[in-house]
Order: sequence, then structure tokens, then C-alpha cells
Amino acid sequence: MLSIEIEPVGAVVGAPADADGRPQRQVIEIRPEYESCLLRIEECEHLWVLFWMSELAREDREVTQVHPRGDREVPLHGVFATHSPMRPNPIGMTRVRLIARDGLRLTVEGLDAFDGSPVIDIKSG
Amino acid sequence: MLSIEIEPVGAVVGAPADADGRPQRQVIEIRPEYESCLLRIEECEHLWVLFWMSELAREDREVTQVHPRGDREVPLHGVFATHSPMRPNPIGMTRVRLIARDGLRLTVEGLDAFDGSPVIDIKSG
Repeated sequence: MLSIEIEPVGAVVGAPADADGRPQRQVIEIRPEYESCLLRIEECEHLWVLFWMSELAREDREVTQVHPRGDREVPLHGVFATHSPMRPNPIGMTRVRLIARDGLRLTVEGLDAFDGSPVIDIKSG
Repeated sequence: MLSIEIEPVGAVVGAPADADGRPQRQVIEIRPEYESCLLRIEECEHLWVLFWMSELAREDREVTQVHPRGDREVPLHGVFATHSPMRPNPIGMTRVRLIARDGLRLTVEGLDAFDGSPVIDIKSG
């Protein structure tokens, strides 16, 4: 089976966590060549964002089993039976609230992706 | 921004549609090297499956705007504001019911992927 090549359509800007515990906001900056893919996106209240967890090291991607939610009382599960970021293809998949669109910039709430994570797809949510 | 290389973890086997309108079942065949990622997956009732819509031609991936659900009365929307399969990175994302696991084979209901589609990730749903 051949490998698949994906061109990021944008990137996440901004820190993932808010020390105050407020729902965090981050910006997705879409690459100019994909601007026309955004037509009427401001009508969406929610979006699904697929992003690449590029902060993970190669060895994180070789972890195949984890204790869900890091709870050692829960027996090991294969990563495909969990939402762990550790997995062969570390694709994050999060439903976010769209707060605003300003040209190529989408302000979203609830993403929790590292600053700079490549965004690989966006769908209405 | 560099492109991302993804190794499929498996493939879809079986036809996507059922002429009788019954909820369709398909099999996901996981590659042997990812077997340990499946531990306890049979405990999951639902799974999210990310797959690559390899049936799309290069020109489908260059479509940036569509009429949602093919309805010409609805104005054009950018593909990121829709669930259209046409998009720069044609990743399908479907929540399925897990019917059975038999070793490397997961029988699922509701996937609607083309026979042979590469599967790139599975998460608990």
C-alpha cells in the first residue's frame, strides 16, 4: 500500500491552553491558495478541524497501547480504541465553535492544538 | 510548509451501498503491523474512521466550491463549509457502529467508503 501525501491547508496560531480555565480561542490561518474554499464559512456555527499533531516525536507514534486518560487503573487499550494523541498517524480531530472569520483567519474556540500545528482539513460541523 | 506523509493502517473491503437500503456493512482490514493498536477495541460500540477517498480524481480535489447536497437552489459554498468529498485533502470522517472484530478484521455499519479505500486512523467514538 502506497503512502499518502497531504499538503496542509493552513496552520494553527496561538497557545492551546488558558491558565484561567476559560474556553480558549485560537486562530486557524488558511493558506491564500485555499481562500475560495472558505466561501460562506462564516454561516457555520461549528466546524470539524483535522490537524496534524506535529509536536509528537517519532517514538510517540510507535506507542500502540495506552491507559485511557492516563489512568493506570484502566487496563491498557490499543490506541485505535482511544482518543490518545499517540497513534501511527497523529491526526487530531476536534469539533470547534467558529467565533469569527476575518479573511483567511478563522477564530475558533475549543481546538486545543499546539501553536503551529498544520491544518489538513475543515468540514462543517 | 512541508507536506505530510501518511502510511495507511488498513483498507476498506466491500461495496459501499446496499440496493435494499439496509444499513450497509463493510470490513476494515487492519495491516498486521498495527494489530496491537486494536487491543480491547471490541469494547467500543462506535468508532470514528478516517479514510482517504482515493477514488477522487486530481480534478475533484481542485474543486473549491459546491452546492451543498448537490442542491442548485442552495448558493455555492466553499468546500470547508460543507461535507462534500471534493476538497484539497479528501479525507473521509465517519462515525460507524462496530459490529464485530475477528482478528485484524473489523466489521462496521455506516461507513459508506469505496472498496479499497485506505484507512488512515481509527478512534473511539
